[in-house]
Amino acid sequence: MYIHFNELKKELNRVLIGLSFDEHKANLCAKIFAENSLDGVHSHGLNRFPGFVSAVKEKLINPGAEPELIESHHALETWEGNLGPGMYNASLSMSRAIEIASLYGIGCVVIKNTNHWMRGGNYGWQAANAGYIGFCFTNTIANVTPWGGTDPRLGNNPVVIAVPKKDGHVVLDMAVSQYSFGKLQEFKVRGEILPVFGGYDLKGQLSNDPGKIIESQRGLPIGFWKGSGLSLMVDLLLTALSGGRSTAEITRSKNESGVSQCFICIKQPQLHDSLINEIIRFTKTSSLPTDSTKVYYPGEKTLSRRKEHTAKGIPVNEKVWQQVLNL
Amino acid sequence: MYIHFNELKKELNRVLIGLSFDEHKANLCAKIFAENSLDGVHSHGLNRFPGFVSAVKEKLINPGAEPELIESHHALETWEGNLGPGMYNASLSMSRAIEIASLYGIGCVVIKNTNHWMRGGNYGWQAANAGYIGFCFTNTIANVTPWGGTDPRLGNNPVVIAVPKKDGHVVLDMAVSQYSFGKLQEFKVRGEILPVFGGYDLKGQLSNDPGKIIESQRGLPIGFWKGSGLSLMVDLLLTALSGGRSTAEITRSKNESGVSQCFICIKQPQLHDSLINEIIRFTKTSSLPTDSTKVYYPGEKTLSRRKEHTAKGIPVNEKVWQQVLNL
Repeated sequence: MYIHFNELKKELNRVLIGLSFDEHKANLCAKIFAENSLDGVHSHGLNRFPGFVSAVKEKLINPGAEPELIESHHALETWEGNLGPGMYNASLSMSRAIEIASLYGIGCVVIKNTNHWMRGGNYGWQAANAGYIGFCFTNTIANVTPWGGTDPRLGNNPVVIAVPKKDGHVVLDMAVSQYSFGKLQEFKVRGEILPVFGGYDLKGQLSNDPGKIIESQRGLPIGFWKGSGLSLMVDLLLTALSGGRSTAEITRSKNESGVSQCFICIKQPQLHDSLINEIIRFTKTSSLPTDSTKVYYPGEKTLSRRKEHTAKGIPVNEKVWQQVLNL
Repeated sequence: MYIHFNELKKELNRVLIGLSFDEHKANLCAKIFAENSLDGVHSHGLNRFPGFVSAVKEKLINPGAEPELIESHHALETWEGNLGPGMYNASLSMSRAIEIASLYGIGCVVIKNTNHWMRGGNYGWQAANAGYIGFCFTNTIANVTPWGGTDPRLGNNPVVIAVPKKDGHVVLDMAVSQYSFGKLQEFKVRGEILPVFGGYDLKGQLSNDPGKIIESQRGLPIGFWKGSGLSLMVDLLLTALSGGRSTAEITRSKNESGVSQCFICIKQPQLHDSLINEIIRFTKTSSLPTDSTKVYYPGEKTLSRRKEHTAKGIPVNEKVWQQVLNL
């Protein structure tokens, strides 16, 4: 079943208004959920919407909250998120980081006590659309095993890096776990083993059996010891800058709410488009093995899905769509 | 054989003065090489020094060059490295980023046409010693295979993140390749296979045979597709910001010279030491499997090696030490 972007957005907007989101906030949040589906990130688009509605009803997310500036040092600002909707807070934060970067060349906005931003890539595209280099990261509940340990003590702490490019921005949106648990579930349902290690089994052995990793909840960071260090640093940076909740504290609360995030924007002294295209050309012209069709740059597939879904509509899960229509 | 830090530094300083480094520059570069050995990073300390001397003699590194400010947007500065010694340029750049951060809360210095900074971690420790969060990255010659390709088209582009902590800073110094070629050589010499995939063989198959990867020169990025994207972004960020040489251009020149680097410093509104310690405690108390003794935080082993080598001297390769004495 295919739904047009505008129809999807309109329906989500209706539900949010019913949950006492004001018009502006409902519109922005509905737009972000719909864009995530449009770009093919269904797990953080329509499919995530019923969960978001539940979190609002459980008062983990406060639709009426507005972020507040706590501290300002010219190009560095710290904000209190007041547990408002994560996508709203994140959009405002990146927007403020862009403003600061336009004044100072670089801008950094740190926000604490905010909520899940859904797809982090959104805020990368936001910066790049404004012509700025964008960089943002968030902490999460513990779902990744530190190197040398056996149980989850690190978040998968997604990192987003965006560089503007005239014919389609380059946007990396990457959790530091090798696979998300959603992706593991997909492999399990198809009865497939993972092409590379994805976590540990209950005995603490590295495993490429998605079922065993889901059972143990012990995800693997990218690059083993390296991603383990990277995940820790992301959490440290966020906590050191914001004074907000760390992965440790979020995990103890048992709810992935009240997370910490950071948004950095940098002005490009010149838009070096030809140099950027040359890097991509060099990377993409790597000789291909027989089982590979193409080397992709980050954001390339997103853009092609966006074009496809804009033309023919967004493929939706009918059950979830019906559920939203009934909300 | 063990050499005291001061003796090592003095000897390196003597050689650099002989290569027409001025006193200040010789002292700084000798200090960084000696500190790298002191911290146990022998590959970028004494063992690398003869190669550095050769590069100076081949005029890839210009001892007399000074970096110049090209463009300034308040908290964002672009510098021309004039192919000066990489450690000197990197130290000045981080020092300038600290100064800017003290004024604006955050500071970003980008430098092009500079040289290998040896151990990136140095500049992280430099920022953290000044009480600032430090963040820096460099591009390199192509030595990593993009996901979906078979030959090296990406650099291992090291990334450094440092967060100050009262009883020893947390400093991640991480190339985006799973193993360095130096590390692969060590495994090969010991006749060991790698515990995890480290690259591709000549047929383009993932391999944990260090000999086959050295033969193909096809290193693997951390996290397969993820590190592939991350490496590309680091190169794009550097090139987009500096207008300098990308991995593509460095690779074409066949010499890893004239690279691009970025140094970002952030002021911590407050030094949240107790929160930082809590994150580390939470991570380190992950249950341990039987074959693990400890979960380490990034920088922990460096600090213990530094203490050990300060007390009992730095273990040096006698052949290299003799070579340096004869320079």
